[in-house]
Amino acid sequence: MCELLGMSANVPTDICFSFTGLMQRGGETGPHKDGWGIGFYEGKGYRAFHDPQASANSEIARLLQGYSIKSKNVISHIRQANRGKVALENTHPFARELWGRIWSFAHNGQLKGIKQWTLPHYQPVGTSDSEHAFCWLLGTIREEFPKPPTQQRQMHHFISQRVGELAQLGVFNCLISDGRSLYTYCSNRLVWITRKAPFGPAKLIDADVTIDFTHHTRPDDIVTVISTQPLTSNEQWQNMAKGEFSVFISGGRVWSKIASRPCS
Amino acid sequence: MCELLGMSANVPTDICFSFTGLMQRGGETGPHKDGWGIGFYEGKGYRAFHDPQASANSEIARLLQGYSIKSKNVISHIRQANRGKVALENTHPFARELWGRIWSFAHNGQLKGIKQWTLPHYQPVGTSDSEHAFCWLLGTIREEFPKPPTQQRQMHHFISQRVGELAQLGVFNCLISDGRSLYTYCSNRLVWITRKAPFGPAKLIDADVTIDFTHHTRPDDIVTVISTQPLTSNEQWQNMAKGEFSVFISGGRVWSKIASRPCS
Repeated sequence: MCELLGMSANVPTDICFSFTGLMQRGGETGPHKDGWGIGFYEGKGYRAFHDPQASANSEIARLLQGYSIKSKNVISHIRQANRGKVALENTHPFARELWGRIWSFAHNGQLKGIKQWTLPHYQPVGTSDSEHAFCWLLGTIREEFPKPPTQQRQMHHFISQRVGELAQLGVFNCLISDGRSLYTYCSNRLVWITRKAPFGPAKLIDADVTIDFTHHTRPDDIVTVISTQPLTSNEQWQNMAKGEFSVFISGGRVWSKIASRPCS
Repeated sequence: MCELLGMSANVPTDICFSFTGLMQRGGETGPHKDGWGIGFYEGKGYRAFHDPQASANSEIARLLQGYSIKSKNVISHIRQANRGKVALENTHPFARELWGRIWSFAHNGQLKGIKQWTLPHYQPVGTSDSEHAFCWLLGTIREEFPKPPTQQRQMHHFISQRVGELAQLGVFNCLISDGRSLYTYCSNRLVWITRKAPFGPAKLIDADVTIDFTHHTRPDDIVTVISTQPLTSNEQWQNMAKGEFSVFISGGRVWSKIASRPCS
């Protein structure tokens, strides 16, 4: 299995603290040593860092833990390979362009039979189930909406239906973003926390690091972090329900739906 | 204007030495301080590093100068903005997927009127002429070849014609790769060097760094470096001709053509 980390914020925010916790699980406090990746949206731009090495030993991961990239949407992933060899092309997040925006995707789980699904548009570079699922999902969005829909709600409905179909194939916890919205689907394991005023201290579970967000935020900041498991020991993380699809924009959960039949 | 750097090699090779020279020109020995980027192919995988900051002051660039990523094809770029603001989304190389391969592109020059050209398939994220040209080029390849052509020569001919059309709009020095081939077009300024046995020492122009390739290579290694200007002071770089389109595979120049009417 793998672990996911996502962030949605109303102001450009760095994710160094949460990322530091997650990276330890890639070979140090956890077994997810088969590569890692993180993608940051900065304005319209997107940049990702990938490494097929264990994150706990990665020089690039070490740099990023202290390198403040300010972003409103972030997706990160550490991998424990099950399908698809350990290789750069199989590290998440995967990214493709649609309507002049970069869409990114990371996944935890396995999807039995996904490779039989026809891909109308985007093709995988690697051999993972996850990238195949992403190519399928984005291709269906493109077919349904040759241009961006005028109502965001149309998009929420459409994606919630498609990810529900994917989840029928197995375990499908995922994070998807187009740089504006952060779409999440919980097949069996995702937790989240929204930090806003009054801010307080937070202590990582996986490293001896404590931060007092009071000194790093402004009163109006709203930052939601989504993760496979809680990253801090002194805060109250909320569990997502099985089959829950939620959309976060600017740190707030703006849309949510729980599938009536989350697993096959 | 901008500066380009490309590498084609027959064995996975690191580009730290050449990259170190180029990065100085981004704000230190040269004026190209409006961002930089580098894309590496590792097997089927592709990863890129981008920064809208001047490369001479970039922490990420500093890390990469000492971080040995072994690749057979690399494209790098430092930017001095002319069209399109200084922003992450306007830093080269740009990348898109076609046939399950990542294609990457970097460009030096301006293309007057390119934004009127219809894009059949890929859309730019940023506002640069260069990304628009890349989206057009890759879209035409996709339209002509829904599947990869069986003969590489077909691809060489097709791309040479399309980049020739682009070059009619202004200045178009560019590097394009799909991870196998490195396509180059010289509108007015590109130089290249092929290093092979017997190897010897090389001294950077832009930094006080000398390397003796004898100690870092095997007898069969062949490595070609393409650049806007020579990067070393003690080697013989060859000028490309105006209007020259050349294709490099595994360090060797396998196909070349000089346009009869390179500039409008």
